Amino acid sequence: MLKGRHLIDPQDFTVEELEEIFQLAEEIIGSPEEFTHLCDGKVLGSLFFEPSTRTRLSFEAAMNRLGGRVIGFSEPGSSSVTKGENLPDTIRTVASYADIIAMRHPKEGAPRYGSQFCDIPLINAGDGGHQHPTQTLTDLLTIKIAKGNFSNLTIGLCGDLKFGRTVHSLIKAMSRYDNIRFILISPNELQTPQYIKTEILDKKLLDYVEVERLEEVIDRLDILYMTRVQKERFFNEADYIRLKDSYILDNAKLKLAKSDLIILHPLPRVNEISMEVDSDPRAWYFRQAKYGMFVRMALIAKLLGVK
Amino acid sequence: MLKGRHLIDPQDFTVEELEEIFQLAEEIIGSPEEFTHLCDGKVLGSLFFEPSTRTRLSFEAAMNRLGGRVIGFSEPGSSSVTKGENLPDTIRTVASYADIIAMRHPKEGAPRYGSQFCDIPLINAGDGGHQHPTQTLTDLLTIKIAKGNFSNLTIGLCGDLKFGRTVHSLIKAMSRYDNIRFILISPNELQTPQYIKTEILDKKLLDYVEVERLEEVIDRLDILYMTRVQKERFFNEADYIRLKDSYILDNAKLKLAKSDLIILHPLPRVNEISMEVDSDPRAWYFRQAKYGMFVRMALIAKLLGVK
Amino acid sequence: MLKGRHLIDPQDFTVEELEEIFQLAEEIIGSPEEFTHLCDGKVLGSLFFEPSTRTRLSFEAAMNRLGGRVIGFSEPGSSSVTKGENLPDTIRTVASYADIIAMRHPKEGAPRYGSQFCDIPLINAGDGGHQHPTQTLTDLLTIKIAKGNFSNLTIGLCGDLKFGRTVHSLIKAMSRYDNIRFILISPNELQTPQYIKTEILDKKLLDYVEVERLEEVIDRLDILYMTRVQKERFFNEADYIRLKDSYILDNAKLKLAKSDLIILHPLPRVNEISMEVDSDPRAWYFRQAKYGMFVRMALIAKLLGVK
Repeated sequence: MLKGRHLIDPQDFTVEELEEIFQLAEEIIGSPEEFTHLCDGKVLGSLFFEPSTRTRLSFEAAMNRLGGRVIGFSEPGSSSVTKGENLPDTIRTVASYADIIAMRHPKEGAPRYGSQFCDIPLINAGDGGHQHPTQTLTDLLTIKIAKGNFSNLTIGLCGDLKFGRTVHSLIKAMSRYDNIRFILISPNELQTPQYIKTEILDKKLLDYVEVERLEEVIDRLDILYMTRVQKERFFNEADYIRLKDSYILDNAKLKLAKSDLIILHPLPRVNEISMEVDSDPRAWYFRQAKYGMFVRMALIAKLLGVK
Repeated sequence: MLKGRHLIDPQDFTVEELEEIFQLAEEIIGSPEEFTHLCDGKVLGSLFFEPSTRTRLSFEAAMNRLGGRVIGFSEPGSSSVTKGENLPDTIRTVASYADIIAMRHPKEGAPRYGSQFCDIPLINAGDGGHQHPTQTLTDLLTIKIAKGNFSNLTIGLCGDLKFGRTVHSLIKAMSRYDNIRFILISPNELQTPQYIKTEILDKKLLDYVEVERLEEVIDRLDILYMTRVQKERFFNEADYIRLKDSYILDNAKLKLAKSDLIILHPLPRVNEISMEVDSDPRAWYFRQAKYGMFVRMALIAKLLGVK
Repeated sequence: MLKGRHLIDPQDFTVEELEEIFQLAEEIIGSPEEFTHLCDGKVLGSLFFEPSTRTRLSFEAAMNRLGGRVIGFSEPGSSSVTKGENLPDTIRTVASYADIIAMRHPKEGAPRYGSQFCDIPLINAGDGGHQHPTQTLTDLLTIKIAKGNFSNLTIGLCGDLKFGRTVHSLIKAMSRYDNIRFILISPNELQTPQYIKTEILDKKLLDYVEVERLEEVIDRLDILYMTRVQKERFFNEADYIRLKDSYILDNAKLKLAKSDLIILHPLPRVNEISMEVDSDPRAWYFRQAKYGMFVRMALIAKLLGVK
């Protein structure tokens, strides 16, 4: 039963509960016009304590496409509700105007803390470098639609695997399904943190390997999840120069890949996927953005209990 | 007849007109789903020439819950409509897009001035330290719902009574009802201004008393309206240290109060109401925030003439 | 067929296509309540990479009055969708959430460039000093409503004719109709650019004359289009002092004008139209602003193909 629940961490929901959301999302994708009035009379409080236009627009489009309404703010600003006032009071006030809240906050843990004072569903729309559960839902829905299910997949995660929260969440999320293999592609200094390897991958006896170069392994992948590698995060210039091209996906590398590979990216990209790749049918990252809106529609409808 | 009227000062409306609004607000509270399409096709211009997220969200939630739409801005910004252009032109332009305007402005008198150029209803959503009539409507509706009517009440106003515009408006508004007693609780330097005492309280032969300490009088109150006392407003440090705890409501003080006291606060609070009070059934300030939205729904519907 | 088209330059549409839009706009003006649900379930992405409150509110009111919804941002801000990310990616992302985009950008050509990556209709809501096609549509609709058609008109354009993009667009647009005479009223240093005179006026054998003073020619005008003259744009102080009053319309000058003259202005005005003129029935500039909303409603409906 998802009605009335908060979503703070992607792990808050069971595999079955996620499945419920994905099924509704696929129904919506199939005939969106049937859902145009589902949230008539409902209001989303869209509270962005730090700007994130992409995520905000996705949530606001989602609520509007369900016939609901949106109130909120897009950056902290200088008003009482966002400055000076304690978070519980802000949450309680907005909860008295709205039926559901999406909240982005620069501080880790703020959504969890705020949800304790919130008698309506609260969705974490990203808290610092911590969690971003609707991105994970987006990634999962895209995989489901592309591959039909979540089992028997070889997933390459490429780029900065040390600081990338979406990558960590995706590893945790996918580790709950059967026969998943991970190929972790990153420079040494940006490898997946040890606690993820110990507590998730090793504990669940998952098959994984760490490599430095995308071109070595791209032919084995069913899914390639690209993230950005920032120059500043390399320990030395020599490493950066030696490796940087390995983390840029272009048509040359893509020639080595399977024909049914799907390329994902949480966006925005900088230059880690060459624009020439955009027209390749394996480029799924813009479709992924669109699925992000649909999965948020399903999530909102489920938490409001209107479906 | 409220259709087509402006609301600039709470005194713009008669007691009977206010009663009309409160009755509609109570109907909406009783069955909000019946009002979901009342303002279909209508547009609110939400013009915040200074930020006030709380008031803005309340207005925007109100219009959305009536099925209407909202356009506007949440801070002055740098565009023509808000900078450089004279206020009459801005008002006339927005009045050509919208059906009703809610306007917040840092300058006292700006809404009154603007309303002269406005051929649609204009609601003052706060002008500097001057008027904030929808806060007064909120306070009154909460009192009506809690107490059943506006007569025979002892009202304690506590904190900064010198600069607090909501307190001044509430005194004026309540002085129109029968058998109201005021207990004005503040440090000497922050007492109610003389003109309020002379022109409202004395002229109407109202019963009032001024005291320095909340704990002395809390047992006599039916309503306790708390406001913030800022340290900077004390004349000397010694006074501040001697008195500051008298203006903080906590469970200890509340033990002395009646069981049917209601505690109001315009929000945001800083520390003048201890968080331990929040779970006391006499704490009405969050309910009050919610009633603020409902009274704005009723006000908008009345001024638009759709109800 | 306008469905699915972009509008970047006013010349993108034929005279017949414009006529289609104006006819729908007039139908909407005649019975707006019939169009309240025309865009149910549709979403406008309102992307203002520079602030322009007036234009933004007009677009957002237009979409809301059609029953559609609006997502977007009102200034560049600091988020990924607006900073750092390349424009094609931003457009593609928003195009995956919305059904139609209105885009304002400080850089000339940005909307044209962006539209190449946009699989939904994109409307240029102003790009630097370049194009502002919905202002031109507004001007044309107002002329049509006031005069019944676009032929046999003497049009005075007054003020800064060198830098005023709305004036250039209006000359191009009106030059497509029959028997149009232009009277170009400006100081020498702010005359209409030579390329407009050579490539539009001369090429189409249009009748035009350039003068320095409004009072000399106002009696001959059917339409007077006022724009602002900035002191900084004069070459010398003496010229400014000699001429400045010629570019301010007041009741004295208006006494010389025809009784069916219409005065237009793209707004905001500074002091180039005296406020005493506002109550003259020939002052059409506020009505013009209102028609701006209606013509945007018609444009959105046509590009979406719902009408």
